[in-house]
Amino acid sequence: MDPTQISHLALDIGGTLIKLVYFSANGDYSEESRNGCSVVKGRLCFAKFETRKIDDCLEFIRFNILHHSGVQQPNDEGHDKLYVKATGGGAFKFADLFKEKLGILFDKEDEMCSLVGGVNFLLKTVPREAFTYLDGQKKFVEIDHNDLYPYLLVNIGSGVSMIKVDGDGKYERISGTSLGGGTFLGLGKLLTKCKSFDELLELSHHGNNRVIDMLVGDIYGGTDYSKIGLSSTAIASSFGKAISDGKELEDYQPEDVARSLLRMISNNIGQIAYLNALRFGLKRIFFGGFFIRGLEYTMDTISVAVHFWSRGEAKAMFLRHEGFLGALGAFTSYNDQSLNDLKPHHHTVQRAILNCSGHNLRHIPVTSNLNESETIECSINLV
Amino acid sequence: MDPTQISHLALDIGGTLIKLVYFSANGDYSEESRNGCSVVKGRLCFAKFETRKIDDCLEFIRFNILHHSGVQQPNDEGHDKLYVKATGGGAFKFADLFKEKLGILFDKEDEMCSLVGGVNFLLKTVPREAFTYLDGQKKFVEIDHNDLYPYLLVNIGSGVSMIKVDGDGKYERISGTSLGGGTFLGLGKLLTKCKSFDELLELSHHGNNRVIDMLVGDIYGGTDYSKIGLSSTAIASSFGKAISDGKELEDYQPEDVARSLLRMISNNIGQIAYLNALRFGLKRIFFGGFFIRGLEYTMDTISVAVHFWSRGEAKAMFLRHEGFLGALGAFTSYNDQSLNDLKPHHHTVQRAILNCSGHNLRHIPVTSNLNESETIECSINLV
Repeated sequence: MDPTQISHLALDIGGTLIKLVYFSANGDYSEESRNGCSVVKGRLCFAKFETRKIDDCLEFIRFNILHHSGVQQPNDEGHDKLYVKATGGGAFKFADLFKEKLGILFDKEDEMCSLVGGVNFLLKTVPREAFTYLDGQKKFVEIDHNDLYPYLLVNIGSGVSMIKVDGDGKYERISGTSLGGGTFLGLGKLLTKCKSFDELLELSHHGNNRVIDMLVGDIYGGTDYSKIGLSSTAIASSFGKAISDGKELEDYQPEDVARSLLRMISNNIGQIAYLNALRFGLKRIFFGGFFIRGLEYTMDTISVAVHFWSRGEAKAMFLRHEGFLGALGAFTSYNDQSLNDLKPHHHTVQRAILNCSGHNLRHIPVTSNLNESETIECSINLV
Repeated sequence: MDPTQISHLALDIGGTLIKLVYFSANGDYSEESRNGCSVVKGRLCFAKFETRKIDDCLEFIRFNILHHSGVQQPNDEGHDKLYVKATGGGAFKFADLFKEKLGILFDKEDEMCSLVGGVNFLLKTVPREAFTYLDGQKKFVEIDHNDLYPYLLVNIGSGVSMIKVDGDGKYERISGTSLGGGTFLGLGKLLTKCKSFDELLELSHHGNNRVIDMLVGDIYGGTDYSKIGLSSTAIASSFGKAISDGKELEDYQPEDVARSLLRMISNNIGQIAYLNALRFGLKRIFFGGFFIRGLEYTMDTISVAVHFWSRGEAKAMFLRHEGFLGALGAFTSYNDQSLNDLKPHHHTVQRAILNCSGHNLRHIPVTSNLNESETIECSINLV
């Protein structure tokens, strides 16, 4: 791979996480000639880092992308500038840092535009990308490319953006909420002393929200408020029981706190998403962002919220590459430059620990930050 | 006052608070004859208790209403049963307790019906009841009785109910959210060790939400995300900064935590209220419930949220007797029985510490629970 291939890295630097998408050629560098181009087989790889540990991300890029792809270290005034697609607020905030440390210049892509580009790319080119989650059942949805628009994209990052998508590059950010993944992790850390998002999610898995949430039955003495369709087990007030018990934080199990928090935020996002979908008559709502992480309870809560509020009219859908929408969108924007004909090669997507051929993970000081992720086999044409 | 006047007490027993409205005759028992009825001058009085301290409420009623109005203590099989209007979930949950301890039977009124009845009563009969709060300015709103409906009522109790009101007794609960006053107090207690709602509000008054909330500028390196209309000071993620600091709960000032919490919940309610108003083309949104308590920061946050999301099209309005809507509605439902022609007497409303003539507050073991409240001078006709 020649040095220009550094351009096949795209970053989405959010308030909480940095998401990377990059192309990794297969070990045999199997080039094929097609239409006069060099075709390189490989796969799209995904990685993430905490934004507060941005140095780990810099190291990862230096050792595993710049180094292995044969790119010279920077600070050599003579050689060409390296441009990399970057989106998210951090593309502005950390531009100087990347230039100084890696000699990389950011070619900034708009955050919303990248999100939409990422989703459209996934829905059009990756089979079995979208699915519903209802009653404990994951069900893949076949998307008719001719009947894709309009839809509502709800991206749950640190905060939440809600975007009405009407076509390729045709979109509008119509709403959002500040109660997002950052709220879950921020409040969760303060309340449970968890250190990470994964730890907090794992905790929530074992909790019972009814310990802390005030249910309709708690107010009505165990009975429903059936006249307005509220069952006794509906949550009347999130964390409402914590007012009356005379208990302190230490008296609650952290897993119950985590569960209530996850339920509160997921349900709230589902409700606001539905209300916005209703405004514009959008029947399909795609939820993305790193908040979800394929967690069944989260997806179930969001799905139930959308189903409940829409009386079954609107449908919540999820995406397998949910966390990398912005980064993927930025990546696909290389199309205009050196990349073309990007698509999944074998129409199969493998679930695998990030393990890009040719990259020695032992060199990475940050392996603990690398989560299970999904690579996409594909080929790129080098023009 | 004869024993039947116990009927001039109405209760709204919620998950967090018990609200009382009762009629207190003036000390001179100035009866007038009008249309063949006895007219008793006095005032409507308001009191509240924490639901978890329901015994204080029972004592208050026993000493200050039953006792002073000359009603016999119960448990005397011979005398007539005393019926009292009651609403809220506690009208079901605590019916047996009131019967056992005070010999009072609840005449249950539907919660939503009572809320609507209370607001309609206030808007039609109490001058200078509704007001807007924008840019630090409280501005009373003249309500044209012929142009009152439809409106959206947002009652913020432990949880939040949103009711579309189309006329007297014509309403529908169209939405709600579990992020309400119970969430503020519940989470607030866990996070700050505050003991009461008032303490928590007082704390929040001195806090700065930017310490813990992640702002757009925190993600974008201090700049706006102007393309989508988000200023650098907009909250991107409530509590989002708590993820990245490596700080623990003890490292934050409780007042900053309280402020972020109040902002998060107020803003969320304002947004969901607006989205629901939009569905039905409602331009006026009245916010009630004990969450607000006339607190300027809360009203400002809600007003700004409604203004921001509706681009100035919808207007948030507040009510001076915001906390007693359900209790007032239950009270006015006596109309069908022994009360009629209930209205403010002098068309003045005095702001006063609850201090009903004829009631000796020194006898009450629960004075600390009595907040500043607003009495309404009025007269009632005894038929």
